[in-house]
Amino acid sequence: MAPVYKLKFFNFMGVAEPIRYLFAFGGISYKNIEIEDADWPDVQKSVPFGKLPVLEVDKKVLYQSVAISRYLGKLVGLLPNDDLEAAELDAIALTVFDFGTKVHEWYHEQDKEKKLYLQKELEERWCPRYLGDLEEIVKQKGTYFGGQKLSWADLYFVGIMESIEGMWGSKILEKQYPSLFTIYKHVHEIPAIETYVSNRPHYKY
Amino acid sequence: MAPVYKLKFFNFMGVAEPIRYLFAFGGISYKNIEIEDADWPDVQKSVPFGKLPVLEVDKKVLYQSVAISRYLGKLVGLLPNDDLEAAELDAIALTVFDFGTKVHEWYHEQDKEKKLYLQKELEERWCPRYLGDLEEIVKQKGTYFGGQKLSWADLYFVGIMESIEGMWGSKILEKQYPSLFTIYKHVHEIPAIETYVSNRPHYKY
Repeated sequence: MAPVYKLKFFNFMGVAEPIRYLFAFGGISYKNIEIEDADWPDVQKSVPFGKLPVLEVDKKVLYQSVAISRYLGKLVGLLPNDDLEAAELDAIALTVFDFGTKVHEWYHEQDKEKKLYLQKELEERWCPRYLGDLEEIVKQKGTYFGGQKLSWADLYFVGIMESIEGMWGSKILEKQYPSLFTIYKHVHEIPAIETYVSNRPHYKY
Repeated sequence: MAPVYKLKFFNFMGVAEPIRYLFAFGGISYKNIEIEDADWPDVQKSVPFGKLPVLEVDKKVLYQSVAISRYLGKLVGLLPNDDLEAAELDAIALTVFDFGTKVHEWYHEQDKEKKLYLQKELEERWCPRYLGDLEEIVKQKGTYFGGQKLSWADLYFVGIMESIEGMWGSKILEKQYPSLFTIYKHVHEIPAIETYVSNRPHYKY
């Protein structure tokens, strides 16, 4: 019997969006549980390390978006068989996560002066560093992060970038990173993802 | 022919130490390249995302310590065959990395007031959160993070904790986290690790 999947996250895309993409891609049913602010203190006590997303697979509880996405990636046939190629994709996803953390830090900063400083850092330092290097890697590899073949790392990247562009309020890939934007377009053209995206709740970011 | 491995990092343990443990465990030869401060600006330009460690495997360049360690973990027989169990260990290693990042942030903070604040956060919030939850997981699982069987996540944890305890200046596991300390002892009692540790350079942390 197929396992019962329950994804717990909040009412936005964030680091859960790649997981939702992967379920859509694989045509796998899951329960998408969006935790309300009022319930968060109680839920927080019940999940490992007090963080979301978590994915329940029957009785087992997975956490850390990269670990969950890699797991689902293999399940839906988006993980290469070669271990070295697989490790290269792990490194890509972990790096995309790091970049997302920087953007998240800026977005949630309350102090105005600090926020301006973080914005400058993002524009002048982190975007060129992360997106610039990712762009170069794709250029060398071919169409996707793994070369000619779509992988879970591409879905991870696009899911996180959707959330980042939502926070940032600008289509940064389309403007400056053509190879990365090609991945973005290709992933959105996958029929199952297209259907998911046009039917998902209206997430702000 | 066996690949040629070159590990590039600095003259300390940090996030490279689990990688060195894994090489020792597997009896695999590698070149341990320690980048001097004077050479760092040039090296930084040559590595993906300007960060170390990187592991060269012949012509391929791996980065992100968790991705590298998982790859080597599989190579040396420390990764479970079951994908769900493997994903649980990925989540453990990623969480240990997150905890290490918090300690690193405190250690390198230059502002005295901010540093005191970060220390308080570590003591009152992050140690109980990370080490407390990790301790509970091991208690429920058995001896190791994966149950009765040693895995790469145990080596990852112990390598990072050695560096953390070096920064922290205190044997925090021995004092407060008996199940985690048992993993620490077991890993250090593995003959290949014992030999490596007693012969390694005198790393400060």
